[in-house]
Amino acid sequence: MKSVVCYGAKDLRLEEQEQPVAGPDQVLINIEAGGICGSDLHYYNHGGFGTVRIKEPMILGHEVSGRVAELGSHVDNLKIGDLVAVSPSHPCGSCRFCKEAMSNQCLDMRYYGSAMRFPHVQGAFRQRLVAGAEQCHPFKQETSSSEGAFAEPLAVALHAVKRGGSMMGRKVLVTGSGPIGALVVAVVKMHGALEVVATDVVDEPLKCAAKVGADRTINITKQARELGKYAADKGFFDVVIEASGNEQALVSALDLIRPQGRLVQLGLGGMVTIPQNLLVAKEIELCGTFRFHEEFAWAVALIGSGRLPLKALLTDVYPVTEVNQAFETANNRTTSMKVQLTFN
Amino acid sequence: MKSVVCYGAKDLRLEEQEQPVAGPDQVLINIEAGGICGSDLHYYNHGGFGTVRIKEPMILGHEVSGRVAELGSHVDNLKIGDLVAVSPSHPCGSCRFCKEAMSNQCLDMRYYGSAMRFPHVQGAFRQRLVAGAEQCHPFKQETSSSEGAFAEPLAVALHAVKRGGSMMGRKVLVTGSGPIGALVVAVVKMHGALEVVATDVVDEPLKCAAKVGADRTINITKQARELGKYAADKGFFDVVIEASGNEQALVSALDLIRPQGRLVQLGLGGMVTIPQNLLVAKEIELCGTFRFHEEFAWAVALIGSGRLPLKALLTDVYPVTEVNQAFETANNRTTSMKVQLTFN
Amino acid sequence: MKSVVCYGAKDLRLEEQEQPVAGPDQVLINIEAGGICGSDLHYYNHGGFGTVRIKEPMILGHEVSGRVAELGSHVDNLKIGDLVAVSPSHPCGSCRFCKEAMSNQCLDMRYYGSAMRFPHVQGAFRQRLVAGAEQCHPFKQETSSSEGAFAEPLAVALHAVKRGGSMMGRKVLVTGSGPIGALVVAVVKMHGALEVVATDVVDEPLKCAAKVGADRTINITKQARELGKYAADKGFFDVVIEASGNEQALVSALDLIRPQGRLVQLGLGGMVTIPQNLLVAKEIELCGTFRFHEEFAWAVALIGSGRLPLKALLTDVYPVTEVNQAFETANNRTTSMKVQLTFN
Amino acid sequence: MKSVVCYGAKDLRLEEQEQPVAGPDQVLINIEAGGICGSDLHYYNHGGFGTVRIKEPMILGHEVSGRVAELGSHVDNLKIGDLVAVSPSHPCGSCRFCKEAMSNQCLDMRYYGSAMRFPHVQGAFRQRLVAGAEQCHPFKQETSSSEGAFAEPLAVALHAVKRGGSMMGRKVLVTGSGPIGALVVAVVKMHGALEVVATDVVDEPLKCAAKVGADRTINITKQARELGKYAADKGFFDVVIEASGNEQALVSALDLIRPQGRLVQLGLGGMVTIPQNLLVAKEIELCGTFRFHEEFAWAVALIGSGRLPLKALLTDVYPVTEVNQAFETANNRTTSMKVQLTFN
Repeated sequence: MKSVVCYGAKDLRLEEQEQPVAGPDQVLINIEAGGICGSDLHYYNHGGFGTVRIKEPMILGHEVSGRVAELGSHVDNLKIGDLVAVSPSHPCGSCRFCKEAMSNQCLDMRYYGSAMRFPHVQGAFRQRLVAGAEQCHPFKQETSSSEGAFAEPLAVALHAVKRGGSMMGRKVLVTGSGPIGALVVAVVKMHGALEVVATDVVDEPLKCAAKVGADRTINITKQARELGKYAADKGFFDVVIEASGNEQALVSALDLIRPQGRLVQLGLGGMVTIPQNLLVAKEIELCGTFRFHEEFAWAVALIGSGRLPLKALLTDVYPVTEVNQAFETANNRTTSMKVQLTFN
Repeated sequence: MKSVVCYGAKDLRLEEQEQPVAGPDQVLINIEAGGICGSDLHYYNHGGFGTVRIKEPMILGHEVSGRVAELGSHVDNLKIGDLVAVSPSHPCGSCRFCKEAMSNQCLDMRYYGSAMRFPHVQGAFRQRLVAGAEQCHPFKQETSSSEGAFAEPLAVALHAVKRGGSMMGRKVLVTGSGPIGALVVAVVKMHGALEVVATDVVDEPLKCAAKVGADRTINITKQARELGKYAADKGFFDVVIEASGNEQALVSALDLIRPQGRLVQLGLGGMVTIPQNLLVAKEIELCGTFRFHEEFAWAVALIGSGRLPLKALLTDVYPVTEVNQAFETANNRTTSMKVQLTFN
Repeated sequence: MKSVVCYGAKDLRLEEQEQPVAGPDQVLINIEAGGICGSDLHYYNHGGFGTVRIKEPMILGHEVSGRVAELGSHVDNLKIGDLVAVSPSHPCGSCRFCKEAMSNQCLDMRYYGSAMRFPHVQGAFRQRLVAGAEQCHPFKQETSSSEGAFAEPLAVALHAVKRGGSMMGRKVLVTGSGPIGALVVAVVKMHGALEVVATDVVDEPLKCAAKVGADRTINITKQARELGKYAADKGFFDVVIEASGNEQALVSALDLIRPQGRLVQLGLGGMVTIPQNLLVAKEIELCGTFRFHEEFAWAVALIGSGRLPLKALLTDVYPVTEVNQAFETANNRTTSMKVQLTFN
Repeated sequence: MKSVVCYGAKDLRLEEQEQPVAGPDQVLINIEAGGICGSDLHYYNHGGFGTVRIKEPMILGHEVSGRVAELGSHVDNLKIGDLVAVSPSHPCGSCRFCKEAMSNQCLDMRYYGSAMRFPHVQGAFRQRLVAGAEQCHPFKQETSSSEGAFAEPLAVALHAVKRGGSMMGRKVLVTGSGPIGALVVAVVKMHGALEVVATDVVDEPLKCAAKVGADRTINITKQARELGKYAADKGFFDVVIEASGNEQALVSALDLIRPQGRLVQLGLGGMVTIPQNLLVAKEIELCGTFRFHEEFAWAVALIGSGRLPLKALLTDVYPVTEVNQAFETANNRTTSMKVQLTFN
């Protein structure tokens, strides 16, 4: 069985590993497709982010779909051959947040391909994966494995949009139109937002955002003045979803959002400096969003329904044998949105 | 008629002015009590704050109570002799926020004793005031004019607490225990918070916070470690109300608040630098609060009910003839909470 | 100018009336299209409903669109030739509900074509209508007058769905698939409901419901057992919108909705008998919905966007000269959904 | 060990039973106090209610406090001698509602002293009780066992009030002032309701309601007209909590509640007939409330804080040897509110 192992910055190796065996509550999955995420790229490019660093070889990857190959003896919710999306999230089930149905805040979370804990939690870019049966969500409608591998980022986008409140009749700004930002655009639009504006500093992602639902796109390096017009009369947008992690995008959003508007911070940055008085005087709600909880099952149902234009977001597919090329391609924002690997 | 006029930093004059006359929808009020607010102190100490500067002589004051002396011909909701609290807020009534019942966000607000517009809006520290009948809220129960003059800061506190959501069963941290912070403590406790912790950098305000409802007070210059214990397991407090405007108080609150907790920023500061990833990962809601809307009438009803320990917050009363002494006293946080003037 | 005047049950007359003149804040509209609503049919069939009876001749109609023909001297938000939807709602603007931005609960409402007050408020089925400029909402995109006349029922549907809370990921049951129920289905689906089931006692409306977004339709006279399956495990639906006014539909919905689900009662009935213990034990929220407030402007924007399949709901169009035939057609649920009149 | 066993209507026996033994995750409690609840009275008076009937001898009781006498080997959250309130609720922990943190809706609930399942779940009116360690909530402050036995009904009241939304500044009507209604009054008031009106058909409970926080009490058999005045201008109360289960109380509440007000149905009745159009036109939210979830721990903390006037609600205490007399006394609404048994 081949796995994609990261040893540090720019040191990604395709390694042969022993095939795992499913326990009674687990299943063995033949992984078919895996999407490369921003955090995978951080490990690949920099060996980590912030204080989270790779300290031992770690299999990357947490956006995968595959087919059930073997069932543990207690498993009754799946059958051999099912196409499933595998949730990378394995909460403890017993901490106070798990008991409050907020498992994304679990105090003892295990998440595929994450170096936050040590030993690291190994990821899912491998040909065979053993996972808990309850982590595996079968598609009920005909679905391709490449669409199936969108379940995790779609769950992240759904959670972020849900944190923004109802989209009914809302005017929404999405800042940052990379793979997650564009998914957010699609989700916002399919939930009834009246007007969706997407921004970026690069043209190519904006074209994609337009395809998946943005009513207007603005390249802020060229059209800052256009964007600024939305600041009139204390601001235009009911909701902003900040998907870039860029400080300036956040600061600008405080001008563009209307009083008591909801600004969802999805992108991760570092220390940011903001004008507190603007937030106070306009009574803006700036709220974080992190991963997902029940949204994974919902994402699987939505993907099955075919109501989201996911294919417009998939720009490249590489066999796992060309994993380094795949990561380099994913690094290039002017040519790539989501890049996936195939495993078998 | 005497008025308290500010000409600039440390230049406060008691001036004789002509008595105003009430129009048909207005009343003439004999002002009895007026509380000195933090913004009054800013004008007095610095001639303004941020970009808001005194550019012409301005009567200060916006926390006043008095008795109705004359009624305009159309006024039918008041009678001569009524003790009223006068709302300093005069929204336009026709902008989109006024139409949405969010008049505190009015695009053309007039607010007593504010240099935000030019000509400035003259304030209410004067012996006679003409106000719109609908700005005047009569007390239905026996109330002293000094309690009555708490209506405006209490409305601010009520709005801030309301922005924090229901207090039922909540663990609440109030950072900054000055006059507004202490009012917030009192309001939080009387709405059922299970546990209220108040902080400050000075001991005296904390004693006051304890009197009005704090279950525990922490002087963060001496007991930072004690406060830090609340950061365990991703944070203890359901709600934080940040009433100091201090950057460090806000940054610290992000550690102490629980995931998805609500952090209400009430204190005004300038640019603040915060760890974005903490807000994101804990999905904190940081929201501003500004002035009040329907809370003024509510404050008047609450004051009338006698359920709030307002007297514990009133540390000094001066006749208006000693206004400079009153402002100097109000400047001293180790001896004063709320300082009021009397006018007649 | 011709008007459609109701004198009582089955006594509808096309009368010549004098053309009205616009005041300074008003406009004269050449009415183009008008939809026949359930309440119009009640007046036509029965001379009223409940205690609301026609006591003097009354022009019917409140779902109209038309073109601006003359502008009052103060009007600056419209221009000659604009296609507008005219809101039939004229709230007083000064009662407590108007001040709270809940004008649909206005204590002194005037609503076109309603016999609730006496003298009755005359309706909008006439060739020329004078209306307040702020009642007239121009379409910004190319729109037909027949689509434009859907603004009022669409506003009703939007308000009802909004009362149901966010539709994101929801499983929704709509009981009663007449013109309003079918609009609700369309609105629910375009705001992201995951699964929409529509019921009726007649097949034809269900076909229409399927066209506009229902994932499944159930004729409860034939497939009651199928519907009953949704009651398993305390109920399947997160939200129910009851659009029939039928007691049995409501009682059944209490079985089919999940604990703490939200049941929006939109259809008007009379006295209904419900099992209180079921509502209590499942903690169901049964809430009413009535008319609309800000949803009218929103409806106009949505119609302009072309995102709703309104044409599927329009089954017949008659010139106003055939108004009696039009009403008879609208009475027949097996052949008609929305029936409209044209006026010029 | 003595237990209070119900064999059917008016057949209550004090029986000697074998002392139970605690398993590893359980504790043995010496029960000290137990409150008689309305459902206990139903079993005693009628052998059940509705379709729920006693089909085998069942120990009654679910409102108890006691002291920890023995600890199972795995128990580490309690110590010998702790005064604890024992939650009667034992949800399955694995159904969809338990996973959503809505355990009061558990599909496989076991609740002390309930004949809903067969075999019945035996109750807690016994001298020794073995309970799961997580069902036992120790009091952190000095508390009497009689106050401790209020934890369960207080949790019910807290859940009901929470279902009503924030009480901040609200005008609240509580219909039915029996033990639960009066607890609701106390809870509503301590969470900041501005005005609380309580009703009943008997004077004595109203006196108690006044003691624990009602600003006004109305005996509806004598003062119906007084109550009716609150119906003016579409209704006065923001929130109604209906604690009587009486149809007329509910119907009347629909008149007295303001538009979009929240009416929490807590009392259990049977089939009720309501004017649907009133609920629709006023957009009332009628919602059920059932038992509690996290409110039990909250109730224990509140009791410990001494902020609720519980003693005013305790009218009689009997030793368990006089259990029949205790039940007869509890049956008399003109003399009794809460009646408790003592066990050791």
